[in-house]
Amino acid sequence: MKKKPLILVSNDDGIDAPGLNTLVKSLKRIARVAVVAPSIQQSAVGHAITVRTPLRAYRFHRNGSLFGYAVDGTPADCVKLGINTLLKEKPALVISGINDGLNTAVNVMYSGTVSAATEGTILGIPAIAVSLEYTNRPNFEPAAKVAVTFAKFVLKYGLPEDTILNVNVPAIPARRIKGIRYTRQGRSRWDDEFYQRKDPKNKDYYWLAGKMRIMDHGEDVDQLALKSGYISVTPIHFDLTHREFLEKIRKEWDGKLKIAF
Amino acid sequence: MKKKPLILVSNDDGIDAPGLNTLVKSLKRIARVAVVAPSIQQSAVGHAITVRTPLRAYRFHRNGSLFGYAVDGTPADCVKLGINTLLKEKPALVISGINDGLNTAVNVMYSGTVSAATEGTILGIPAIAVSLEYTNRPNFEPAAKVAVTFAKFVLKYGLPEDTILNVNVPAIPARRIKGIRYTRQGRSRWDDEFYQRKDPKNKDYYWLAGKMRIMDHGEDVDQLALKSGYISVTPIHFDLTHREFLEKIRKEWDGKLKIAF
Repeated sequence: MKKKPLILVSNDDGIDAPGLNTLVKSLKRIARVAVVAPSIQQSAVGHAITVRTPLRAYRFHRNGSLFGYAVDGTPADCVKLGINTLLKEKPALVISGINDGLNTAVNVMYSGTVSAATEGTILGIPAIAVSLEYTNRPNFEPAAKVAVTFAKFVLKYGLPEDTILNVNVPAIPARRIKGIRYTRQGRSRWDDEFYQRKDPKNKDYYWLAGKMRIMDHGEDVDQLALKSGYISVTPIHFDLTHREFLEKIRKEWDGKLKIAF
Repeated sequence: MKKKPLILVSNDDGIDAPGLNTLVKSLKRIARVAVVAPSIQQSAVGHAITVRTPLRAYRFHRNGSLFGYAVDGTPADCVKLGINTLLKEKPALVISGINDGLNTAVNVMYSGTVSAATEGTILGIPAIAVSLEYTNRPNFEPAAKVAVTFAKFVLKYGLPEDTILNVNVPAIPARRIKGIRYTRQGRSRWDDEFYQRKDPKNKDYYWLAGKMRIMDHGEDVDQLALKSGYISVTPIHFDLTHREFLEKIRKEWDGKLKIAF
C-alpha cells in the first residue's frame, strides 16, 4: 500500500489553538500530519523570521500523545525549522491555519498565517493558508472541510511555483455557504487609531485599534465574496514587483534620472 | 517663502544606526525631517505590527539635540504611530533606511526596511526604501545621495497609489557606480541551514544560517543590476494576487471544486 502523503501544518495562533487542532484531526483522514507551530500566539507578525537569537523546539503533547513541535518563534520560523531540521521527510504540502479571523485585503501583509504558507512555497512546497471569519464562538469544522478539499486537490494537481492559495471562510452555518469564489486581494485597509493612555507610573502608552475601511467594491474581491456568503480563494505569490509601473518608468524615467556623485 | 516638505524617516536597524543618521543629515538639505524609528534592531521582522501589547515612544537625542522618536516596536509600528499620533503634520514622503544590507529577491519579504516604506504607502503616503550592500566598513554617503535624488523626484512627480520604490545601492566607490537600472524583484532565495548546538544545560538550540542561492539570471533582475555596478530600483506594491493564475483557475477550476458539507 502506498504511504499517505505528509502534510506539514502550522499556524500563528499557537500550537494549542482550537483551529489548528480541528484542522489536524480532519487532515489525518487523508494524510500523515506533522505539526510545527509557535509555542505562543504570533498574530500580525508578518513574514518575520528570527535571525538574531537561537530557536528552540519542544515536543508538545495533547491528551497524552505527541501532537507536534512547539517552536518559540514565528510561523515562518516554524516552517523553516520544520522542513530543514525537525522533519525526517520533505512534506508534500504545507497548510497554515485555521486562523481565528479573516486574512483578506491589507491583512494579508500582516498575517502570520499567510506567512507560514508563503515560507512553504519559498522552500518549494505547495501551500495553503486557511482562515475563518472571527466570531465569539468559532466553529472550525466547515473550514476544516474546505481545507481537506483543497488539500486533496493540490496534492493531486499541484500549484504553480511560488503560488499560495489564500482561503477564507465566512462564519455562517455550512448549509448557508453558497460555494467558492476565486478572488483577488482587496485594497481595503485599516483606519488606524491609537488609544493614548497613562500607565500606573503616569507615563504615556499607545495601543493600536481601528477598523477596516472598505475601499474596494469590485465584484471579484475577497471581502465581497465572503460578505455574499462565499468561500474566497485568492492565489497569491511573493513577487511584489509592480509590473505595469515598471514598464512605465523604464520608458519614462530611464536616462532622465541622474545621481550627481 | 514656502515651507519645505516634511519627510518621515524610519528604518529597521534602530534609531542609533549610522545609515539612518547619514540619511537624515542628507535629507535635511531638501526637507524638514521627522524621525520615528525602532529603539532596537528589528532586522527580518517582515511586515509585523504590534497588536497585543502597548507601544511606547521616547524622545531620542543625538549630540545634545532632539533627533526623533524611538519606539519599542517594529518598523511598521513606527510609521503607523508616527503618522497617526506623534507627528502634528502628515508627511509628504516616507523614506526607510539606509539599511545595512541589500533588500533584494526573497529578502524583500523578510525586510523591516521595506515594511516601513510599505506602511507609509498603506497610509496613503508615497514611500521609498533604501538599502546598501553589506560590507565591513559601510560608506552610506553615496546611498544617501541616491535617496535625496529619488526623494526630490517623488516629491515633485509622486508615485501611483500603493507603490513603493525599493532602491538598492552596490557597495562600491561612487565613481564606479554605472547608473540606475529599473528592475524586477528576483526569485533567488536562501539555502537555509540551521546550526544545531547544545546550550550550557545540554539542551538543543537551532540558529538560522544559510546562503543566498542565485536562481534568477534575468537581465532585468535586482541582484544582477547590483552585481553589474548599477543601482537597482524596483517598484513594488502590496497586492500579492497572482493575476495570471487567478485567470487560469477561474476558467479551469470554477464549478469543478465542490465542498461536501
